[in-house]
Amino acid sequence: MAPRNLVLSANAGSSSLKISLYETTGSTDDNLEPVKLVLTSSISNISAPPAKFTFKVVGGTSKDEESSSIQDHASAFAHFIECISHEANIDQDHISHVCHRVVHGGDYHDPVLISDEAYHHIERLSDLAPLHNGASLAVIKTCLEQLPSAKSIAFFDTAFHRSIPAHISSYAIDQHIAKKRGLKKYGFHGLSYSFILRSVSRFLKKPVESLNLIVLHLGSGASACCIQHGQSLDTSMGLTPLNGLPGATRSGAIDPSLIFHYTNRAGRMSHDKNSAVQLHVTQAETILNKQAGWKALTGTTDFAAITARRAKDDPDATLAFDLFVDRVLNYVGSYHLKLGGKVDALVFSGGIGERSKELRALIGERIQCLGYASVDEERNIGVDSTEGVVVDVGAADSSTKRLLVCRTDEQLEMARQCTMGSM
Amino acid sequence: MAPRNLVLSANAGSSSLKISLYETTGSTDDNLEPVKLVLTSSISNISAPPAKFTFKVVGGTSKDEESSSIQDHASAFAHFIECISHEANIDQDHISHVCHRVVHGGDYHDPVLISDEAYHHIERLSDLAPLHNGASLAVIKTCLEQLPSAKSIAFFDTAFHRSIPAHISSYAIDQHIAKKRGLKKYGFHGLSYSFILRSVSRFLKKPVESLNLIVLHLGSGASACCIQHGQSLDTSMGLTPLNGLPGATRSGAIDPSLIFHYTNRAGRMSHDKNSAVQLHVTQAETILNKQAGWKALTGTTDFAAITARRAKDDPDATLAFDLFVDRVLNYVGSYHLKLGGKVDALVFSGGIGERSKELRALIGERIQCLGYASVDEERNIGVDSTEGVVVDVGAADSSTKRLLVCRTDEQLEMARQCTMGSM
Repeated sequence: MAPRNLVLSANAGSSSLKISLYETTGSTDDNLEPVKLVLTSSISNISAPPAKFTFKVVGGTSKDEESSSIQDHASAFAHFIECISHEANIDQDHISHVCHRVVHGGDYHDPVLISDEAYHHIERLSDLAPLHNGASLAVIKTCLEQLPSAKSIAFFDTAFHRSIPAHISSYAIDQHIAKKRGLKKYGFHGLSYSFILRSVSRFLKKPVESLNLIVLHLGSGASACCIQHGQSLDTSMGLTPLNGLPGATRSGAIDPSLIFHYTNRAGRMSHDKNSAVQLHVTQAETILNKQAGWKALTGTTDFAAITARRAKDDPDATLAFDLFVDRVLNYVGSYHLKLGGKVDALVFSGGIGERSKELRALIGERIQCLGYASVDEERNIGVDSTEGVVVDVGAADSSTKRLLVCRTDEQLEMARQCTMGSM
Repeated sequence: MAPRNLVLSANAGSSSLKISLYETTGSTDDNLEPVKLVLTSSISNISAPPAKFTFKVVGGTSKDEESSSIQDHASAFAHFIECISHEANIDQDHISHVCHRVVHGGDYHDPVLISDEAYHHIERLSDLAPLHNGASLAVIKTCLEQLPSAKSIAFFDTAFHRSIPAHISSYAIDQHIAKKRGLKKYGFHGLSYSFILRSVSRFLKKPVESLNLIVLHLGSGASACCIQHGQSLDTSMGLTPLNGLPGATRSGAIDPSLIFHYTNRAGRMSHDKNSAVQLHVTQAETILNKQAGWKALTGTTDFAAITARRAKDDPDATLAFDLFVDRVLNYVGSYHLKLGGKVDALVFSGGIGERSKELRALIGERIQCLGYASVDEERNIGVDSTEGVVVDVGAADSSTKRLLVCRTDEQLEMARQCTMGSM
């Protein structure tokens, strides 16, 4: 074994790449992480150069630059690999495993060691999610070339939702066609839900198997998950991440016939120059995934800016904010009933869930009627400024259901699963 | 004024036509109907001849036949007009008003006296709902020709939902395009919700303005409505009746990108030979409105048959039934929270809501955790066998929210509004 056993987690978005490097600790204590963070890097604006590159060694140097050499996910990853030896003095041969977050796993449930066969299978799956898997595939390919001695493992965001029963995951459509083409609710954000479930279990000192949670992962992509006995019972995203809650540029659930009234070119193929990867998608999917959401309603994808504009009575920002709260509450109400009212906690996470105290306060107020704690103004500070990954933001009262915030970490979840598993 | 002042209500579906003829009573008592039923007629299988024609005079003759002369909605209406003089000895000149249920009213809120201008406006609206308005337009046209001295009035199924606030009715899409093309949640089944609201108000002896209800209109088309202070606050159907709950041949809500994975001809125009009226719709809309729902899941559109097959563990029927219950409960949970838990009653209506005691028992059981009455086995008989239009099927207990069944009547609602109004 190499002197430093390093695990790298790569999380590719359509125009971004987040990477975390961990060192294994050898810990087998369930309450401690089996890995320790060494450094993080993030590359954004990949499809709109110049890309922004940040690099930060824990307790060491950091870098924040624009890079004209980054043109796509492959060159972004190459730039990162160069950096770890130049800036952090790390031998890339010490990286034993690379974890890749792959959005759509189809019927793959467990993490998959990438072989030629697995790569092509994921490539075929990407027909179902061309907007979402493309970037991961590009990074996997580069990684196999640049780190040939490391094992590359794909982790699927759909895997956590394998437990959703058929009457919830099926659509009311022809089931022969549905089965042949894989048309059902898969659900996404699974790595995040997995991380949150385990973190909340530790925080509440209650075993995962007995936890009932309503979890809100609210970021530029937003979803809700209903967890019963530690398993996903329902989630708001569907066949693709488009369904459910609106997001930064995503419409979320709409009338399925809307797009044909929006454009008479809905079914035509799209040629999106802003995408870093060549895609085979319809104009409908491009419009609803890339040209809708808060961006379409307010001109910005920044939810904090929307919240600030709302405080000044800006009508567009007010519509976007109130619309989002309405849709979130729809899922909270549904999932509360789905769990028969037996809910341990409502958990906020994701960029907005972790940071927007306004959103938390408003949602907390609206769900008090179902027996949830009200948001405690002093405790409603989020997790940015705290040590732990979970904080309780509810007014303390043993008779009420908890309101928690969890700083979710998909990269850490992959590194942990990788180290604990047999990969 | 003619010796008998008659009001006719026409309710056209894509392949059916239901007609009720009423006599005005002159009653101005709010607790009594201002009209009395004279006769009813129903024509089905219009697009799949021979059509089935039934005709029933209250306390008099009835007729039940196949008619080869009925080829479309126009000839169906003509056949009915012939019948009222031959079979019921009624002079068609005594019909002072004809009420037409029009599914999609766009931004029309109040009933409209049909002029040339109004006709063309409704015709243009039908671009938004070609599958739904076409049949009504055909009947209106025939009626103007055949009953020239009667006033024809259009009643819109969207009107009841005018009160839905913008943050609930708006989709997270470009609002310039949305406003220009009328792309928002309209909601449907409004005449039914209007009838139910008034009937429940009488039954509970509580003014309409103070009623909070969750109403389920469950038929071959199914929707849910959240009523606060006697006004629609939210409903499950959207821009068109396709969204929300699944129905006999309708998918209900699905991932908006699903249809592009179902067929690569989603955006092409459809040529549906089974439709009685020439339509301008995409294949996507035809598939999701006409080739999905229980029909696609089980081969039948008959929910009673599905329920019976489920009792024998038929897997397709079990999937369809359980899927439907799941989707219905999603809306009940959402709307309960939307009303802050302040709900006077959950109301079942529509063909399935009024008849399926299994569905009511199951839903009743699942919502007890929110403080609703459990279904009382002896009282859970529905409204078919009772005199009143509303029955209480919950186990009596003043501490719980009520479970009601209402025999809804869209034709009566139109006749009442027509008589009470200034038309």
